[in-house]
Amino acid sequence: MLRSRVTLQTRMRAVDLIRKKRDSGELSREEIDFLISGYTRGEIPDYQMASWLMAAWIRGLNRAEIASLTEAMLYSGEVVNLSDLPGKKVDKHSTGGVGDKTSLILAPIVAAGGLTVPMISGRGLGHTGGTLDKLEAIPGFNVNLSLVDFRRVLGECGMGLIGQTAEIAPADKKIYALRDVTSTVENIGLICASIMSKKLAEGIDALVLDVKTGSGAFLKREEDSIRLAEVMIETGKRMGKKVVALITDMNQPLGRLAGHSTEVQESIDVLSGGGPADLRELSLELSAWMFFLGERTKSVDEGRRLAESMVATGKAKEKFRQGIRLQGGDERVIDNPQLLPQARSRVDVTSASAGYVAGTNCEQFGNALAMLGGGREKKEDKIDPAVGLEFRKRIGDRVEKGEPLVTIRYNADAKLAEAKNLIAASYQIGENAPREKLPLVLRILGA
Amino acid sequence: MLRSRVTLQTRMRAVDLIRKKRDSGELSREEIDFLISGYTRGEIPDYQMASWLMAAWIRGLNRAEIASLTEAMLYSGEVVNLSDLPGKKVDKHSTGGVGDKTSLILAPIVAAGGLTVPMISGRGLGHTGGTLDKLEAIPGFNVNLSLVDFRRVLGECGMGLIGQTAEIAPADKKIYALRDVTSTVENIGLICASIMSKKLAEGIDALVLDVKTGSGAFLKREEDSIRLAEVMIETGKRMGKKVVALITDMNQPLGRLAGHSTEVQESIDVLSGGGPADLRELSLELSAWMFFLGERTKSVDEGRRLAESMVATGKAKEKFRQGIRLQGGDERVIDNPQLLPQARSRVDVTSASAGYVAGTNCEQFGNALAMLGGGREKKEDKIDPAVGLEFRKRIGDRVEKGEPLVTIRYNADAKLAEAKNLIAASYQIGENAPREKLPLVLRILGA
Repeated sequence: MLRSRVTLQTRMRAVDLIRKKRDSGELSREEIDFLISGYTRGEIPDYQMASWLMAAWIRGLNRAEIASLTEAMLYSGEVVNLSDLPGKKVDKHSTGGVGDKTSLILAPIVAAGGLTVPMISGRGLGHTGGTLDKLEAIPGFNVNLSLVDFRRVLGECGMGLIGQTAEIAPADKKIYALRDVTSTVENIGLICASIMSKKLAEGIDALVLDVKTGSGAFLKREEDSIRLAEVMIETGKRMGKKVVALITDMNQPLGRLAGHSTEVQESIDVLSGGGPADLRELSLELSAWMFFLGERTKSVDEGRRLAESMVATGKAKEKFRQGIRLQGGDERVIDNPQLLPQARSRVDVTSASAGYVAGTNCEQFGNALAMLGGGREKKEDKIDPAVGLEFRKRIGDRVEKGEPLVTIRYNADAKLAEAKNLIAASYQIGENAPREKLPLVLRILGA
Repeated sequence: MLRSRVTLQTRMRAVDLIRKKRDSGELSREEIDFLISGYTRGEIPDYQMASWLMAAWIRGLNRAEIASLTEAMLYSGEVVNLSDLPGKKVDKHSTGGVGDKTSLILAPIVAAGGLTVPMISGRGLGHTGGTLDKLEAIPGFNVNLSLVDFRRVLGECGMGLIGQTAEIAPADKKIYALRDVTSTVENIGLICASIMSKKLAEGIDALVLDVKTGSGAFLKREEDSIRLAEVMIETGKRMGKKVVALITDMNQPLGRLAGHSTEVQESIDVLSGGGPADLRELSLELSAWMFFLGERTKSVDEGRRLAESMVATGKAKEKFRQGIRLQGGDERVIDNPQLLPQARSRVDVTSASAGYVAGTNCEQFGNALAMLGGGREKKEDKIDPAVGLEFRKRIGDRVEKGEPLVTIRYNADAKLAEAKNLIAASYQIGENAPREKLPLVLRILGA
């Protein structure tokens, strides 16, 4: 059939490109452009793209195809030009996890340190939280700025945090929605193209990737996380950007709090010089790399010292206050986190046995949170920002029978029992203390 | 993600079934029912079915899944009950090729011999012809009978040839259209379910399968044709039907003529005791098996003799005349084939060299025919029934330089040069006569 079609017509057709990928063929740059631009314009229907995505998911995409796909998706929309703003533009992207609120911390640190951070973020889905949803816990905060307003805010305070506008990588927006309902999400090539097409559209010079690995990450196995990181680094460098990736542990939540209001609160804690050690450590480390890649400092160590001083001097916290104000939010939350939506009730999930926390099924914490209204099970779901989980025990901690593992902050108790069971079942309690503590940053790639 | 979804909700969801097949899992009968009935009712969208079909195409379906799929598609619509008609009901199905018009010959033979042949056929697409299109070359012939009229015609003359009505396997109709545009056609499980769901809906007791193999077949390799045959036989037997499959050669066209009017004419030739040897042979052989499986004769040999006598006595030809009349066609074509649409022009494709025909790229004859208007390149195309190809040389024949290989009967010459080139290039001329002649019937399975 293929031969006959080629004979009968030489015009490119989606059905032939589906067949080619189905049969493990490599698509050329022109073929990928045809698919992506045709789909974006609505000339190629959802069902053909769905079929191609499944073939690509199963057969895989090689490095050249991933680069072509990323560029086709990038150029399906506008690429922001921030060259009129002074200094380097840097961003960070995390592949997502539970309690991962570093964006809210490092954007003010890095902007306070003199670089521009144009951050286009996403929403949470499934067990992971989303930066936009967290910011919206701040009363009045508007993540839906136009590109014109985004540029103005960036010029004024050096940081801006918005959602994907209609102009930014529309192909990705359409393809992502389709992947979600056709079980074609967890593929390294497709993930890379989705992330990088958006990030490269921001007009950045450098990008720090935080690729999560472990039970709370999308990619559970370290080798998969490393492959994704390598592919994203290569794709970014091919486009002339500086890129490094930190492979970081997501076998337990980052910080002590998960949930929207609580994560804003914990971010303010870190910006105020407090907060849990792991969250502070990772936020400073990522900031340090952003300073270095953005050529603000001559070394990562120097970047680290700069980041620490932005916190110590309170400049980062003031930058966050300014950023909130410029995006319409109630800046008083900085000094009075009680202005963030608060849950009416609290209840502890206690340990059924004594011992040491050997590990957690971290993804399930995110699912429990979503179950209580603090996340989305479906895209249409509305989030209750007040709902949260406070993690009282970390891996390696001693725990007694009946001692609280997690404190749930909740409003509706419809699924409370189910969520409690899920949380309790997600702690592995062993007899002995784990021999070694897994480091938070497992590996640094691309440096 | 899978684990979390199962935890969050136990209700069946298309996205989970797509994931299961993507990950090489086996779907249960209930899961396949859910997919097929949901898709038929429009509750599962095209893009999810397209994604599942691609996963099934690549990962494969096992015997139990194929049986479940066939039954789900069968029971998506009405199953015709012909038990009030006397005697056994038998049908034949061919997987399609070039010049394959045996249905037009064996239906009258078998009906004349006393069995009922309720034949629900398809249209041609790509390089293959379709029985419905051929019948429509007969002025007035109506293939769109309601099931009520179909039953009446069957009762009156023992044969009826119609298209898939809205009541028959609607799931197949919808899925086939989707497979065609998503490159998920050539998969043994999907082909089996598509064919068998329609055939089992006819209310038959027995089915003879003509599974083509070679350069003019959908499945080019004999082992693939055998696997398809085995799966169809098993599926039919599981449903309590008698089924045999003949694996037959399609490395060159069947008979001397391809094209709609010309194939009706050649069928009448065979029913009149003439016609080319290969076509006559295969038609009689298939009829013989139908008589045997339909318990009209005690052996296939006896069936063969009965088939021959139906032709020799003219009873088969008279049956065809009656069938045409009952379906609204101009029965005078039987005696005067010139009443069939005739092409205005003829031109020969000649051989560029002397030698022996070593083989043909048979599929390309079908494509050349379609190119000239005698077939469909797209589903919407209208067929010119007058266009035809007369094959002057068969595999093993001696040919001199400049001698005609094919005579083209055509009306429009827009693509004539292209079609001529394609035909010429599809004959392989060797120096020596091929050592052995491939038999027409390569294998009989399920007997």
